[in-house]
Amino acid sequence: MKRGLFLTLEGVDGCGKSTQLAFLTEYLKQKGLDVLLTREPGGCAIPEQVRQILLNPENREMSAETEMLLYAAARAQHIAEKILPALEAGRVVLCDRYLDSSIAYQGYGRGLGEQRVRQINWYAQEHCMPDATFLFLLEVERSFERIRQGRQSTDRLEQEGRGFFERVDDGFHALAERETRIRVIDAARSVEQVWAELRQKADEVLEQWQDI
Amino acid sequence: MKRGLFLTLEGVDGCGKSTQLAFLTEYLKQKGLDVLLTREPGGCAIPEQVRQILLNPENREMSAETEMLLYAAARAQHIAEKILPALEAGRVVLCDRYLDSSIAYQGYGRGLGEQRVRQINWYAQEHCMPDATFLFLLEVERSFERIRQGRQSTDRLEQEGRGFFERVDDGFHALAERETRIRVIDAARSVEQVWAELRQKADEVLEQWQDI
Repeated sequence: MKRGLFLTLEGVDGCGKSTQLAFLTEYLKQKGLDVLLTREPGGCAIPEQVRQILLNPENREMSAETEMLLYAAARAQHIAEKILPALEAGRVVLCDRYLDSSIAYQGYGRGLGEQRVRQINWYAQEHCMPDATFLFLLEVERSFERIRQGRQSTDRLEQEGRGFFERVDDGFHALAERETRIRVIDAARSVEQVWAELRQKADEVLEQWQDI
Repeated sequence: MKRGLFLTLEGVDGCGKSTQLAFLTEYLKQKGLDVLLTREPGGCAIPEQVRQILLNPENREMSAETEMLLYAAARAQHIAEKILPALEAGRVVLCDRYLDSSIAYQGYGRGLGEQRVRQINWYAQEHCMPDATFLFLLEVERSFERIRQGRQSTDRLEQEGRGFFERVDDGFHALAERETRIRVIDAARSVEQVWAELRQKADEVLEQWQDI
């Protein structure tokens, strides 16, 4: 059987990723594709338990190393239990956040360094890399505005200061420059404009996959 | 200030480690030492949350990689939040299980290999190695008997078959042969005999530490 297609969506909080992910899921399903929508950290029972620890605002004492290892642990399980079986069954896997978020948030944001995050995740991942990644870029100031307008409660990561999110943004930009699988989408425009760009880029990826 | 003393106790389930740990704690306190008794996985709030995931018998699907990364994540936090501050304050830290358990259980038992476990933990540990380790060795058959006689409920690890525990035992023996910090104690004898040996070996370690 033809191997499935692994797509990830990445970007800072407030970039509109969730809305676009819902559009993309619906769009691919209407094309008759067998879509698995999932997210990190989480996606199945054990990683969702790890997610509770990671996002609990009371876990203020968490060290950067602990955080990185917990994300990697959740990912290892998610891959083994959900992503790889779906890809082997020929499905299209859409994942909200993946390795690039670990590199941007823990490697750049927390200052652990990209290499360290990659090495740890090398053990978690079994070379399970996305075929394509849609990265939503948005200036930190704009994403802060959107988060403020949105909801009241903030999780542990969102309690971080501005400098943290600027380093995360630097990380995403650095990845975008180096990795050809990453397709950048300007998230500063209207929902409709962003969706038009995402749809076009997704169509290109789908065509390449279907031609294989 | 003089750096504290970091002692770990290791061995398969049923080896009598918990009883001996209680004796040792009391013995050191009676000598007027400032003792911190702790355990892995666990020891403080975040690692205890990870412990719940690791020992939950319903988490049957857990992959070996996930398990190893969760132990390393819990350890990273335990070291940063509890062990290092205690050592810096000159205290005697007594820890029930540590890196050697990860090597024996995940490296040997699960077959991930010692090197892989060491590399992952290198990031978690910041070179925080025990000054001495008391390793309780007991034949697998004997430890099984003791567990059967003991309690009814079994955690996720204890549901493993005999082959698993034999590989773990091999792992502990291999470590004992190579690492000079490890002091082996024959756990097949009576509680009193085992305690006499542990006390004598602990006294040797204390003397060396107090002479520094």
